[in-house]
This record gives sequence, structure tokens and C-alpha cells, in this order.
Amino acid sequence: MTDERGPVGDDDRRHLARAIALGRAGMEQREGGPFGAVVVVDDIVVAEGWNRVTSTLDPTAHAEVVALRRATARSGHFELPGATVYASGEPCPMCWAACRWARVARIVYANDRAMAADIGFDDQFLYDELDRPTRDHDVPLVHLPMEAGRELYEAWAADPSLTRY
Amino acid sequence: MTDERGPVGDDDRRHLARAIALGRAGMEQREGGPFGAVVVVDDIVVAEGWNRVTSTLDPTAHAEVVALRRATARSGHFELPGATVYASGEPCPMCWAACRWARVARIVYANDRAMAADIGFDDQFLYDELDRPTRDHDVPLVHLPMEAGRELYEAWAADPSLTRY
Repeated sequence: MTDERGPVGDDDRRHLARAIALGRAGMEQREGGPFGAVVVVDDIVVAEGWNRVTSTLDPTAHAEVVALRRATARSGHFELPGATVYASGEPCPMCWAACRWARVARIVYANDRAMAADIGFDDQFLYDELDRPTRDHDVPLVHLPMEAGRELYEAWAADPSLTRY
Repeated sequence: MTDERGPVGDDDRRHLARAIALGRAGMEQREGGPFGAVVVVDDIVVAEGWNRVTSTLDPTAHAEVVALRRATARSGHFELPGATVYASGEPCPMCWAACRWARVARIVYANDRAMAADIGFDDQFLYDELDRPTRDHDVPLVHLPMEAGRELYEAWAADPSLTRY
């Protein structure tokens, strides 16, 4: 199952073990689900996090998002080129895309989405839903074009002084 | 293009126009990209947001995530059953999954992912990447199973007193 482009070393095992330990700590402190994450740049841990959904009432407070937000705040930039994210569980589509928006270089995880499904989490379901046509989604996704929307994007394109990301 | 399960009314147009106006306000205040969002429950606006990626150095601060976090904080629960999310642009995979984790009932958007691509945003690219096998991803996603990971999920499953989500 290992990505053939991702040779795994002792540093990877150490950081991933730390992500798992963080997931356990967060769970034992009853802050959320059993998930932890570590962001590493140049073999230095720049941020750690665990799931805080139920304790902070934030459905986006997955371990990876928590760790990425801390990492970018500390680094002083909204992107983390060269970073590796270690996650106890395979990132859900939200966390995967968060990693990609942050321009990380690599993602390493231990438990896969099937294991998450076995303990009641929807990661597998969400990936399956993304594979289905929108019209078959459980939650309707309605496209309602508006001229003001087009004008908004045109205004963005017309002002190169606005910071791109 | 409209989802056939999503009859569109004047309330929808009003809330979506507001989301677009918020996107413009955030852009003009140089807080981030040209994206706004509104969360509505029972035709009441419970939270608004605009993109704050570049100003808060948070790659996850997309308009929908900002609005959802505010909505759940105010509602006192990490889920928003019955809510509709109005977004100026089609949610990226991160925002789409955030909506789904929040258990919203409906998502309405104006500009589609192709329009976002036209002004330089990666939403379309990320959806395409999700359609590709992991081994073809630009960013390696490495599966490194660890026994401690399995034990962590087993500990979660064994304690029904932990809050599920």
C-alpha cells in the first residue's frame, strides 16, 4: 500500500508515532476523535495537533487542520513548501485538500479510511460521495449562476496587487 | 447545471447575493481571495464569512470554513442540521467536506470551479487530483501502517462515553 515514491525512514516512523500518541492524548482528554498530526519541515517539528471537533464545537478542527493552522501561524506564511504532514489516520477530503492548499510536499499516515469506517467515521463515505455525480449526492449542491459573481472574479483578475495564493 | 433536487427561490437569490457581496468586501479589505459565504438556518442568517487566507496566514480560512466555524460556535453544537451554506464560488474539496462534516442540508453556489480556474485558483485541479490514483498525485500520500495506530482506534471503539461525531 505504500506510495512507491515515498521511501520510508526511521524519521518517518518517529514522527508518525508521535502523531498517533497525540491522537491518543487528545482522545484521553476528551477533546475529540482519536486523531493526531505533526507538521515537519527540515526534520524539525513545527506544529502538532489533535482533533478538537467536539470540545471546540468546530467541525473543521481535525488534527491536520489544527496542526496546519499552527504551522502557518508560526512560519509567518500561509504556505508550507517542503513540509511533511504526519497523520495518525488517512486525511479525509477536507484535510487532504487543506494539506494541498498549504502546498505541503508529502503526507504520511498510519490508519487507512477503511479502519476509520470500522469505528464509525465518514471518511470513506465522503470519498465515495466525491466519486458520485453531484445529482446523486445525499446533500444537494445547487448551482445558481449570478452576474454579480462573475463581476467579483473579474474584479479579482483585474487587480494584480491582491495577494495570490 | 442546477441540481434538480434544489428548487431555487427568491430567498436563495438573496442569500447568495449576500455571499457574493461579502466576498467583494473581504477582497476589497485585502483579507484574501474573492470568496464569501453565508450559513442560513430556518431562513435566518446564523453566520457570515469571507476568505481570510492571506491576511490571517491560514490556508484553511476559506469563506465557507470561516462561516461554518462561526455558525457552530454560535449554535453551541459542532453540527448544523437543516442549514444551507451559500457560497459565492463552488466549494473546493476542503470546504465541501467541511460542509458535510457539519451535516448541512444543502449547498448553493454561484461561480463554478471552471470560473475559479480562469482566475488562477486550484479548485478544479484538486478535484481532478482526487480522481487520479494516489500514485499519480503530485504530492505523495504514503501509507505507513503502525500497530499503535490500530490500538488507538480500538481504544476509541472500546469507550462509548467518548462523544461521537
